[in-house]
Amino acid sequence: MGKPYVIGIDIGGQSTKMGVVDARGNIIIQTSFDARDIITLKGYMDELEKSITHIINVPAVGGKEKIKGIGIGAPNGNYYKGTIESAPNLKWTKDKQGNPEVVYLKKMVEKIFGFPVVVTNDANAAAQGEMIYGAAKGMRNFIEITLGTGVGSGIVIDGKIVYGHDGFAGELGHTTSVRRTGRQCNCGKIGCLETYASAIGVARTARELLEMEPERTSLLRNLPADDITSKDVAQAAAKGDELSIEVFNYTGRLLGEAFADFVAFSAPEAIVLFGGLAQAGDLIFKPTVQAMEDNLLSIWKGKVKVLHSELPGSEAAILGSAALAWEL
Amino acid sequence: MGKPYVIGIDIGGQSTKMGVVDARGNIIIQTSFDARDIITLKGYMDELEKSITHIINVPAVGGKEKIKGIGIGAPNGNYYKGTIESAPNLKWTKDKQGNPEVVYLKKMVEKIFGFPVVVTNDANAAAQGEMIYGAAKGMRNFIEITLGTGVGSGIVIDGKIVYGHDGFAGELGHTTSVRRTGRQCNCGKIGCLETYASAIGVARTARELLEMEPERTSLLRNLPADDITSKDVAQAAAKGDELSIEVFNYTGRLLGEAFADFVAFSAPEAIVLFGGLAQAGDLIFKPTVQAMEDNLLSIWKGKVKVLHSELPGSEAAILGSAALAWEL
Repeated sequence: MGKPYVIGIDIGGQSTKMGVVDARGNIIIQTSFDARDIITLKGYMDELEKSITHIINVPAVGGKEKIKGIGIGAPNGNYYKGTIESAPNLKWTKDKQGNPEVVYLKKMVEKIFGFPVVVTNDANAAAQGEMIYGAAKGMRNFIEITLGTGVGSGIVIDGKIVYGHDGFAGELGHTTSVRRTGRQCNCGKIGCLETYASAIGVARTARELLEMEPERTSLLRNLPADDITSKDVAQAAAKGDELSIEVFNYTGRLLGEAFADFVAFSAPEAIVLFGGLAQAGDLIFKPTVQAMEDNLLSIWKGKVKVLHSELPGSEAAILGSAALAWEL
Repeated sequence: MGKPYVIGIDIGGQSTKMGVVDARGNIIIQTSFDARDIITLKGYMDELEKSITHIINVPAVGGKEKIKGIGIGAPNGNYYKGTIESAPNLKWTKDKQGNPEVVYLKKMVEKIFGFPVVVTNDANAAAQGEMIYGAAKGMRNFIEITLGTGVGSGIVIDGKIVYGHDGFAGELGHTTSVRRTGRQCNCGKIGCLETYASAIGVARTARELLEMEPERTSLLRNLPADDITSKDVAQAAAKGDELSIEVFNYTGRLLGEAFADFVAFSAPEAIVLFGGLAQAGDLIFKPTVQAMEDNLLSIWKGKVKVLHSELPGSEAAILGSAALAWEL
């Protein structure tokens, strides 16, 4: 009999979460630790080892020999190299001068526990989780789009995550939505999809609209402009606030136009939306689907589904990372 | 011992070309027939059978038992279904009323000869040819871009052509270069890459520039505006004609901007340019590479090659189709 469990680890800017997961997506046990104040790699690895050791050895799991492997989703995780490279929000990946260092995470964790380990970025982990446990179950061709602080993506072709030549494929948040006159992106480029279709992008669109049309009433005017979040915009839109609805229509239009180009690339069965902004439901889905349909070649019109992620919110990242380990 | 030969067939709007090819890309024998006046499917299949039978049975080939299979590249060829669907330029794919019919080409040819047959579109065939015989030999991740009357593409990921959910993946000529204010494309959309970076697009850019700047001198003014072809523009540019050079700079800029987005999708090792426009050499390569580099994420800057196809011109289509058959 095969080993019944895998471990999924989600490395975020604030905390590291992990769980032992079975083949059906049940989390047997989970734990997490706060990593904000950890500044050395050794400090981080000690905490990681302690937590993993703990969850492996609870009676419900039954020890090392029950574990098939470990999947890790991390910012800038590279599948081929098993590394984390230049992750700006993880202090422990930097040297004493604050310069980013390459962290050979796969090698280090394999050395400690002896399991096979796979590392990739968070969006790829989400895509793998969606395919095994979520809305893309049984699909062999789909694209996962994560709409969070930024816009990430995991592309699945023929049942496999696309890693590309170098392990960095699937940066669809940095395809260009608005050329030349677009917004400045943190990546240095102009007009990236991420500057519009992320939580930050939505808040910015709202602020811009409020400023451009000072006479227009909006529930959002009750908030200090600099404090407006995408959640505020969604709540106002849900109450019928027209300016806020317009913000979502604009965001959806750019997102749907981008989706039409993604479809021309890999002809997926579905595009699955994951993350905070996807919670806005019809507010974002309707204009997105409309714009996508308007921009698809006729062979694809009406044929590509846009779906909501079915990974359970708080555990999605653990499930995604765990799903990677089943492929080992 | 395996069978030493495959047959490659290239179905074009004017003629159907075919050849018997060995594993090194040597064409043992080739033939073609003019299909412009063939209006029935039966008429076409009779000609096809005659030509295939001829090349199989020449002494240098030695008959049926030497053939592993047949690869066919055709407009709107669908890999999964083995069909040609709604190919506007092939009269024999339409019924008496001129309505397009689905042609089950794979099934029909398999029935006649008993070999396995694979059908795909011409750009995918070119990509497969490039991987086995051409500039992408040994590469597992690259994108072939065909710059002809239109702009086609074949995407290779992990050593395999991407067909997507429905067999139609890789329509990069119909991703959007200029939103809303762009040129009308034959596909019904606005601003498709194909309307700028194809031979027709280049000629159109030249005509627009000549019209917009009536005072500006150019060698192209010696030709009737409606007769200007991309070849004329390339020849004038090669002679130093500034307006023509500007046409290529503009074309290359849009092409390179699109390439940066393609790289964000599949992180290829190289993008290979095939077809008439690629013959313009530095005129088109330089501005394309420049614009691509300007728009790449920093992780990819200086790392993605833009290469000229190494498939021999007149036989490229036969080699591409033949290459498909080795995968059978």
